[in-house]
Amino acid sequence: MMRTHEAGKLRAEHAGQSVTLTGWVARRRDHGGVIFIDLRDASGVAQVVFREGEMAERAHKLRSEYVVKVVGEVTRRPEGSENPELPTGDIEVYAAELLVLNEAAPLPFQLDEHLEVGEEARLRHRYLDLRRSGPAKAMRLRSEANRIAREVLHAEDFVEVETPTLTRSTPEGARDFLVPARLRPGSWYALPQSPQLFKQLLMVGGLERYYQIARCYRDEDFRADRQPEFTQLDIEMSFVEQDDVIALGEKIVSALWKDLADHEIARPFRRISYAEAMAKYGTDKPDLRFDLELTELTEYFKDTPFRVFQAAYVGAVVMPGGASQPRRTLDAWQEWAKQRGARGLAYVLVNEDGTLGGPVAKNLSDAERDGLAKAVGANPGDCVFFGAGDPDGARALLGAARVEIANRVGLIDENAWSFVWVVDFPMFEAVDKIGDDVAVGSGKWTALHHAFTSPTPEWVDRFESDPGNALAYAYDIVCNGNEIGGGSIRIHRADVQQRAFQVMGITPEEAQEKFGFLLDAFSYGAPPHGGIAFGWDRIAMLLGGYDSIREVIAFPKSGGGYDPLTAAPAPITAQQRKEAGVDFKPAPAEKTAQEKTAQEKPGSEQAAQPKAAQ
Amino acid sequence: MMRTHEAGKLRAEHAGQSVTLTGWVARRRDHGGVIFIDLRDASGVAQVVFREGEMAERAHKLRSEYVVKVVGEVTRRPEGSENPELPTGDIEVYAAELLVLNEAAPLPFQLDEHLEVGEEARLRHRYLDLRRSGPAKAMRLRSEANRIAREVLHAEDFVEVETPTLTRSTPEGARDFLVPARLRPGSWYALPQSPQLFKQLLMVGGLERYYQIARCYRDEDFRADRQPEFTQLDIEMSFVEQDDVIALGEKIVSALWKDLADHEIARPFRRISYAEAMAKYGTDKPDLRFDLELTELTEYFKDTPFRVFQAAYVGAVVMPGGASQPRRTLDAWQEWAKQRGARGLAYVLVNEDGTLGGPVAKNLSDAERDGLAKAVGANPGDCVFFGAGDPDGARALLGAARVEIANRVGLIDENAWSFVWVVDFPMFEAVDKIGDDVAVGSGKWTALHHAFTSPTPEWVDRFESDPGNALAYAYDIVCNGNEIGGGSIRIHRADVQQRAFQVMGITPEEAQEKFGFLLDAFSYGAPPHGGIAFGWDRIAMLLGGYDSIREVIAFPKSGGGYDPLTAAPAPITAQQRKEAGVDFKPAPAEKTAQEKTAQEKPGSEQAAQPKAAQ
Repeated sequence: MMRTHEAGKLRAEHAGQSVTLTGWVARRRDHGGVIFIDLRDASGVAQVVFREGEMAERAHKLRSEYVVKVVGEVTRRPEGSENPELPTGDIEVYAAELLVLNEAAPLPFQLDEHLEVGEEARLRHRYLDLRRSGPAKAMRLRSEANRIAREVLHAEDFVEVETPTLTRSTPEGARDFLVPARLRPGSWYALPQSPQLFKQLLMVGGLERYYQIARCYRDEDFRADRQPEFTQLDIEMSFVEQDDVIALGEKIVSALWKDLADHEIARPFRRISYAEAMAKYGTDKPDLRFDLELTELTEYFKDTPFRVFQAAYVGAVVMPGGASQPRRTLDAWQEWAKQRGARGLAYVLVNEDGTLGGPVAKNLSDAERDGLAKAVGANPGDCVFFGAGDPDGARALLGAARVEIANRVGLIDENAWSFVWVVDFPMFEAVDKIGDDVAVGSGKWTALHHAFTSPTPEWVDRFESDPGNALAYAYDIVCNGNEIGGGSIRIHRADVQQRAFQVMGITPEEAQEKFGFLLDAFSYGAPPHGGIAFGWDRIAMLLGGYDSIREVIAFPKSGGGYDPLTAAPAPITAQQRKEAGVDFKPAPAEKTAQEKTAQEKPGSEQAAQPKAAQ
Repeated sequence: MMRTHEAGKLRAEHAGQSVTLTGWVARRRDHGGVIFIDLRDASGVAQVVFREGEMAERAHKLRSEYVVKVVGEVTRRPEGSENPELPTGDIEVYAAELLVLNEAAPLPFQLDEHLEVGEEARLRHRYLDLRRSGPAKAMRLRSEANRIAREVLHAEDFVEVETPTLTRSTPEGARDFLVPARLRPGSWYALPQSPQLFKQLLMVGGLERYYQIARCYRDEDFRADRQPEFTQLDIEMSFVEQDDVIALGEKIVSALWKDLADHEIARPFRRISYAEAMAKYGTDKPDLRFDLELTELTEYFKDTPFRVFQAAYVGAVVMPGGASQPRRTLDAWQEWAKQRGARGLAYVLVNEDGTLGGPVAKNLSDAERDGLAKAVGANPGDCVFFGAGDPDGARALLGAARVEIANRVGLIDENAWSFVWVVDFPMFEAVDKIGDDVAVGSGKWTALHHAFTSPTPEWVDRFESDPGNALAYAYDIVCNGNEIGGGSIRIHRADVQQRAFQVMGITPEEAQEKFGFLLDAFSYGAPPHGGIAFGWDRIAMLLGGYDSIREVIAFPKSGGGYDPLTAAPAPITAQQRKEAGVDFKPAPAEKTAQEKTAQEKPGSEQAAQPKAAQ
């Protein structure tokens, strides 16, 4: 090593020792003829003093972020000049030798803790940004999260397995990134949206307990806080039921929060059903740091004269003290709702005398007005917001209003943590509701979690008779309103899988073409199995208290998948394009090798033939 | 859990307990009316007995690889019928309940330990292959290797960081896999050949100690035992010298071999220079489990009348006892040499009386004949093989002959382990010698390791004056003749990096276009740094005693990058092709965003401007 000590670890006990330090010039201060520098390395900062004369003259040439090697003596600072805010604040190092290991050009921005520069500039010079203590801490926190999770899993006999990333398309609700195969022109690999199929194959292979901190890829349109490549802690287990996976998940989450956020989570975590979450909170990822709930009023308004409330669903959420909001704030709520695709946000103000104000009130019947405050649990001075229309849309609006209210009124304790499992998810959802996602299959229904999720035992023999109500053995773990993980018990029987595909409009031929290898695998003795995947970027973000997953990714992409640092993606040369076989056109009549393969019967004799390639 | 115990963990102490087991029917034997099955789960195998009558009748329907749940009582086996070869051989379980969890179709091959089926069939049904104890053990061994390496690194304060895989081209001597960027039509990501550039940027970022078990991608033509995606344990450190990285590498390798191969490696490991390795063993990855060395005879034959030995290099290797090889074996050696691209393999037989035999002997002068045995250290009864011509080619042939001799004569102790660091590599090699690799730049010279390898201090100011002899701070770790890792101290000064690029024929403009971000980074205070990468697949292969890295990869590709299991790569649809923007043609006159970016000056004011995207 070029150094004898780390700068940030020097203490009073080192006084009198000669040390060699290496690091960056974080600050230089000239005090008369004496020069002080803050020398920074990964461990922290120490003050180095260059005495008047030759040493100060040499130090005078140091600029911000020069890389230096200093030999000097550790000395206690004079009484009264200690810096109690710095771990090394009791000492300083009197330099006897100085060697500049590398110079630094003037920086594009200063490395202050409170950086006033845009994220694009930070990311473009990420190698400077990471020298700041905040980003450096984020990297270390994430590394520790990996270690803690692996320790839990190792203690439970899990095996870490790497699964391929140059593979077949996986049907997970987004587009695949594609990779042309130069050695098989006209054929392409897909980058996996998750290791889902491979971890299931590992269970069929008898591995029983698998995990991987896995890179996943989704080619999605730009959404805030999404990355084209992201990481999940991926887990699968055999011979388990839902409670087993949930118990393991709780062990991991508890260990992370205990060690990294100094927070003990009581176990077992709370659980609520999907139906209850949607009814009470308007979302399947409810933030339970505060109690506010939606109230359904469909029955209450069943004879209403108010046209807007003559709807399949009417619900409300109360804003405590909201009656005193000025008119322009109430108007802004309308804008807020419109930005979420709603037509507006009906409201009623509960006056201090119990009468109702606001434009909606006069449209209600007397009886409706009289009972309303009680029905929704509103007090004088509160505001009641309404959602009406199709239940999903109206609840989603009210659920968002609930969180917005909590933020505005200050209902959220920013230091609180709330964890909840959402269980009893529907097996399917209607295709017309999935928005930007890519449906698997061409049916009216698609899988709410994914296509391999098992129905509950009550539904396993009859899910096709009522797809909208069939329940799945699926579970999500939600922290402070963020989905941080999700999983399910999987289908392990080929016949059940085929029936599930059928509901999704995937024909047996399509199923065989896309997932033939999985269906084949199921035919050879697949064990009951299930698993979970944790959103590792988001968990690190929450543990560190950051606002964006970009803060816990070493080299994140900015909007549209662009990397401001390397300027990736970039144009390729004509030669690269040619070599990669991008433009290869197969002869139309000839069958490709892949099609032939898909048509071979599983278990056929060919499969058992030794091939030349062995 | 569906079970109370794991089958393979049952012992005599469990006798009398009722247990619930789950697993696969590994074997079924009908003995009169009683049926025995070997029930296998991930922990091992236990014998389950189905008594005559109803239980036996139900068990009669079980077939190989059915998945079952059995409730039964653990019982000591009758005296004399214990199976000492089985950990559970003292007990058997008398079944009281049997539930078939899943059936299995007839298998394409039987899951015996000594499988007589080709690798293609094994890989196509990898989920069956992995149920065999050998492949299952390989997965567990690899998982343990990860854990052990991470423990060493954690104890040394290393930070695990994930680097991007959708990125820019990295110049590592192979072709990149490319990924079209749908959101930036006409632009492509490259999959990284290694995290090299990013780990160097992390050092510039002040992280000081980085590691990652990293997926890497190289689009190479088919070579035996190469995979298009592979894994390396990737490490980088700041403020270090070569010895520091080597010491860390020894800690990791020692821990792995101690825990997983029960072998203590004496530290420090042996080191030899590249020049010595080439001279003595004809290779930079010498197998030192045996002592046989090449002898250079260029000087010895400097006045030879034998035309073949009038060469820039003449060398020899001795085959102990080789004089007794029949003529057809000596002829086969000629074939062996020709397959390696040589014209043949000259040899001399040392007869028991000390005279020389074979066709070459009569072409030598008397003096050459008389002194030869002594010059090469041959004894009566030995055979001397010669290589003559250009030094690289002749030494490579003799180096290969050395290993072949060792195998034939039995010089290699298959239980031995030899570790050696090869150091003092040349900085550059001539482009005309690199074979299939892709040269970086268009110069006469290319980097022997990679383009970021630092020259040694003696060469740093003058490597361009004698590129063929300049030495680099590079080191490889070799185990039993396999390169299992390699690294270097990197260039950390922008001016040195520019000069190195110049020798490789990379113009400043090309350098800026390809690695501008790295050169920029170097201009802002890059610390001295270096690192190493271990070939993780190969290390797991060696630790487990396997012949191929495919044995330690869960889902390997076979020849040409084809996955027999998923049939990847596969054709894509016209819609996928269109969506991915594969065929987007940019307007020729317009500059792309990437080109514009490359032209901005580092540290310019634009870079510090907050951008809209923040």
